Amino acid sequence: MSDIPGYALLGLIRTPDELRKMAVEDLPALAVEMRRYLIETLGRVGGHFAANLGTVELSLALHWCFDTPRDRIVWDVGHQAYPHKMLTGRRERLETIRRLGGLAPFCLRAESEYDTFGVGHSSTSISAAAGMAAAARVKQEQRRVVAVIGDGGMTGGMAFEALNHAGHLKLDMLVIYNDNDMSISENVGALRDHSARLMKKLGITAPHAAREPQAEHNEAHLDHPGAMFETFGFRYSGPVDGHDLPALMAKLDELKNAKGPQLLHLITTKGKGFEPAEADPIGYHGITQFDPVTGAFPAKKPAAAPSYTQVFGQWLCQAAERDPAVVGITPAMREGSGLVEFSQRFPERYFDVGIAEQHAVTLAAGLACEGLKPVCAIYSTFLQRGYDQLIHDVAIQNLPVLFALDRGGLVGADGATHHGAFDLSYLRCIPNLVVMAPSDENECRRMLSTGLSLSQPSAVRYPRGNGTGVACEAEPKPLSLGKGRIVREAHGRRRPRVAILAFGAMVHPALEAAEILDAVVADMRFVKPLDAELILQLANDNDLLVTVEDNARIGGAGSGVNEVLLAQHQSVPVLNLGLPDQFVEHGTREELLAQCGLDTAGILRAIQRRLRSRDLDETARSKRGT
Amino acid sequence: MSDIPGYALLGLIRTPDELRKMAVEDLPALAVEMRRYLIETLGRVGGHFAANLGTVELSLALHWCFDTPRDRIVWDVGHQAYPHKMLTGRRERLETIRRLGGLAPFCLRAESEYDTFGVGHSSTSISAAAGMAAAARVKQEQRRVVAVIGDGGMTGGMAFEALNHAGHLKLDMLVIYNDNDMSISENVGALRDHSARLMKKLGITAPHAAREPQAEHNEAHLDHPGAMFETFGFRYSGPVDGHDLPALMAKLDELKNAKGPQLLHLITTKGKGFEPAEADPIGYHGITQFDPVTGAFPAKKPAAAPSYTQVFGQWLCQAAERDPAVVGITPAMREGSGLVEFSQRFPERYFDVGIAEQHAVTLAAGLACEGLKPVCAIYSTFLQRGYDQLIHDVAIQNLPVLFALDRGGLVGADGATHHGAFDLSYLRCIPNLVVMAPSDENECRRMLSTGLSLSQPSAVRYPRGNGTGVACEAEPKPLSLGKGRIVREAHGRRRPRVAILAFGAMVHPALEAAEILDAVVADMRFVKPLDAELILQLANDNDLLVTVEDNARIGGAGSGVNEVLLAQHQSVPVLNLGLPDQFVEHGTREELLAQCGLDTAGILRAIQRRLRSRDLDETARSKRGT
Repeated sequence: MSDIPGYALLGLIRTPDELRKMAVEDLPALAVEMRRYLIETLGRVGGHFAANLGTVELSLALHWCFDTPRDRIVWDVGHQAYPHKMLTGRRERLETIRRLGGLAPFCLRAESEYDTFGVGHSSTSISAAAGMAAAARVKQEQRRVVAVIGDGGMTGGMAFEALNHAGHLKLDMLVIYNDNDMSISENVGALRDHSARLMKKLGITAPHAAREPQAEHNEAHLDHPGAMFETFGFRYSGPVDGHDLPALMAKLDELKNAKGPQLLHLITTKGKGFEPAEADPIGYHGITQFDPVTGAFPAKKPAAAPSYTQVFGQWLCQAAERDPAVVGITPAMREGSGLVEFSQRFPERYFDVGIAEQHAVTLAAGLACEGLKPVCAIYSTFLQRGYDQLIHDVAIQNLPVLFALDRGGLVGADGATHHGAFDLSYLRCIPNLVVMAPSDENECRRMLSTGLSLSQPSAVRYPRGNGTGVACEAEPKPLSLGKGRIVREAHGRRRPRVAILAFGAMVHPALEAAEILDAVVADMRFVKPLDAELILQLANDNDLLVTVEDNARIGGAGSGVNEVLLAQHQSVPVLNLGLPDQFVEHGTREELLAQCGLDTAGILRAIQRRLRSRDLDETARSKRGT
Repeated sequence: MSDIPGYALLGLIRTPDELRKMAVEDLPALAVEMRRYLIETLGRVGGHFAANLGTVELSLALHWCFDTPRDRIVWDVGHQAYPHKMLTGRRERLETIRRLGGLAPFCLRAESEYDTFGVGHSSTSISAAAGMAAAARVKQEQRRVVAVIGDGGMTGGMAFEALNHAGHLKLDMLVIYNDNDMSISENVGALRDHSARLMKKLGITAPHAAREPQAEHNEAHLDHPGAMFETFGFRYSGPVDGHDLPALMAKLDELKNAKGPQLLHLITTKGKGFEPAEADPIGYHGITQFDPVTGAFPAKKPAAAPSYTQVFGQWLCQAAERDPAVVGITPAMREGSGLVEFSQRFPERYFDVGIAEQHAVTLAAGLACEGLKPVCAIYSTFLQRGYDQLIHDVAIQNLPVLFALDRGGLVGADGATHHGAFDLSYLRCIPNLVVMAPSDENECRRMLSTGLSLSQPSAVRYPRGNGTGVACEAEPKPLSLGKGRIVREAHGRRRPRVAILAFGAMVHPALEAAEILDAVVADMRFVKPLDAELILQLANDNDLLVTVEDNARIGGAGSGVNEVLLAQHQSVPVLNLGLPDQFVEHGTREELLAQCGLDTAGILRAIQRRLRSRDLDETARSKRGT
């Protein structure tokens, strides 16, 4: 019997086995219930939304046709896997998704045996599925492997690496190409253009049809819509309407026993079945709350301060107004990186390259070679994808590319895959690169201007969320390279004397902790080059130095401070505070910072603990003696 | 007048302008001379060889047809750019290539205005050229942009990211797809298979025809050989014989004024015109010396010790014999990574994925999910390409993938783009990952066995070149996780007392320096987890700790030692030795290590300098007091 009122069918399904016992005629009605459940639940608690309305039928069909979890389904990214979670024992916990202790935002192996591969970043599914299919061959096991990848994910280069390899090996696997003409923004790229032309030719109404494809010099290849995939050794089927459950199931039944690499091209609609989301799939990509009937969002409280993302976007427009050489690059993060206004006002200088961080970085290098001033806006966590290009194409050549790294530090609800936890560690070792971290919006603007003025590469790394509400100078003055500043002097001369060397977003909680400790606080501003003079001065004047950053403690900015001190024969005690040596889960940014001891209370607690150890008295005594 | 005897035409050409003044009828004879010059010079001094014989006509044709350097030519990788260097004012310096102070191994912006983009790693050229073409559009400049990429380079995902973007933007650019059916080894992948079938169908003798393509379920797409590129919005031309100079020049003349993205498919032969190299393009990919007439290589002196590459290859075969779950993965580095024997003995467990590090890492993760034990052999510098996948797909999921990182530290003649200078810094911050660095071959084997025995990810990072010649245990015993060892005790009690904490390849020179200093030496073995107990013991017993590693000093293993000491309230003086904060050029490994102060003399010098500073006397005094 159904365990939720109002959901006669959905309430019967706790596992895919139970699903597979249902009458096939009931599945369309089940899809309706699933969609209603998603709308009702997510309207209340928020989360990734529009993509999940697009995968209801697909999730049903996959679990119906395949023998999960024995057969493997790998969801790319995983923000569209909520229906899959609902069908695999996690329906009643859906309302906890993305919250501390609740369901993970994406697929997670530790959460369910049906989550065969953890995801979050895009374009990994074909590689992972190829590994599973290759393993089945090595182990001589009969199991089916399916990767589900969107047209957005397909713009990532590693998807092609995987197609090329899997096609060569003739692996028994199925790639479902879930084409909804959308990334988070509209999908861009030649493949998208091709697909749009194909839909037009076939008379299929494209899901989000506002964008008419451009005519092409040669449309002959449209007669062979799957030629690209065939070239990669995949047998192409489709396009199939991904919301037509009987057609979809028939196709999957046919393909599941086919040998060799198969690709099924599905056409789906992001936001399917909820009119406001179909009309505005970008606005409904990820949401906090909305009215499940009208789709209306609650009135936004006016924010006390702009977000760093907004600050960056405004700064970029201002910079572009003044300097025609400024160009902006984003790997498919127009909204998330604050580039909407820039893209509208400077379309010829705006480059959305698709989910393609490697290309984004090297494209920037190519633009810089020609004397332009590329500003490459990438989330910290996604720059991991362009790491080699940053070293090899930008830094070795010392090209003046400015990286605007949004989402540095803990990002909150997107969890372990998305925290910008390592950037200071992996950037600090790169020669020629300047690395800055702002403590407020005005600093952020000044740092961006500093980066733009340099003749070498630089990165400004700022957190998710709002600034401090500080007033911003109209004309952000560039900073002196490698110079920090004291933002709080000690009033008394309490012993042991403590100085906090804070980086970026940690300056604010450091200041609050310092009020209680009467500590000196430096806003270091530069992670590289570090202000060695300031560090030595603070070491001379204090009995304990505390470094604070929202980056991995290992190899981070504090580690750089240690290097300076030891190189200068300074043996002052140092306490390095930062993220622990483990992956941090999902929750609100505040919860997670507190968990990691990087809120005011945590910083205070750690310093007080350190102050209780004996060595500091000795340091203080010996310093008084000198 | 020709400036070199025996080269009547080549001696006339100092710049492309001079080339363009030649009679077109003389070009075939010039090509003959160029080839002879390459064979004669490289037979004497060594270098990348076979690929350069394949690009003689192409280089001539490009500089003839295009207005270089105003028009931009971007060579992918650059190991095939010697003919280009010869035509652009660097012919007489060709004999210095790859040597300290000599010509760079690849293209280098600082070396010539004709080198529009620095290269070394593959698959970057289309992105860089797209950046240049986009800049020309923004700046409203008329210039042509050409990227030359091989079929090996085309297996790298970023090439597809770039095609997808450039095709969408309809940039005016030409991609020359230089298809010689080879990467360093035979090229692999579905695209290669497609091309091989196409050649067969067209009756073109493939350059290295031994490999018959497999029949395919559907060959219809061979009627549209360029369909894949057309799908990406590129107009496809070809295939054209890349050694037929008149045909090639006619084609380039036609394409150079074409609007929009163009792709020209060339068929070339690696080693062209030198029979031994045509017959064995793998053996002649990069060479040290050979007889320019017979192609014979000088008899190899029997090496005093096996290379780490060989040690790894043998270990892997041994591991695979014992455990059917062991599988090996390489991104197109079968020879370089020592996997030839493994690939022959265990073909069904051997995966050459093409130049596709991202896919290699995530494929390994997928294999590990199914209970196999993937050993992923990647050069340190190329793991930068798989950094996100290492974090996101392997480490977050804590999957037991073993990374065999060859070419850690300075690699020598391949120079700045290829040094494995950053791996310890960028790996150390990743949770769950174990990082080891062996001091000799036996240690290397033990570490590999350690990694294979773990239920978490690990990396063994070893240098280019030979081991120390130590005897190897037949059954390599796994090490205790995170435990180092003292390899030299101090004999006297000279003050100040020095302990050297050495990592990997630096243990050997550290031991030599310690003989003179009578210092303690620890072979730390583990970069992560560090042996905190050993570090503290050494700090207690000594007046100066010296860390030595052939990784960037910034954020490296020594920085980890500092972190441990400060976290444990230890204020012993520390000297961190490692690579400087700059990109190191090309030369022999020994020359470069000496330049960076990481040979025995350099280590000794740095320690002696540090011993002269006053603070150490105080430390020693205070320690004696306690």
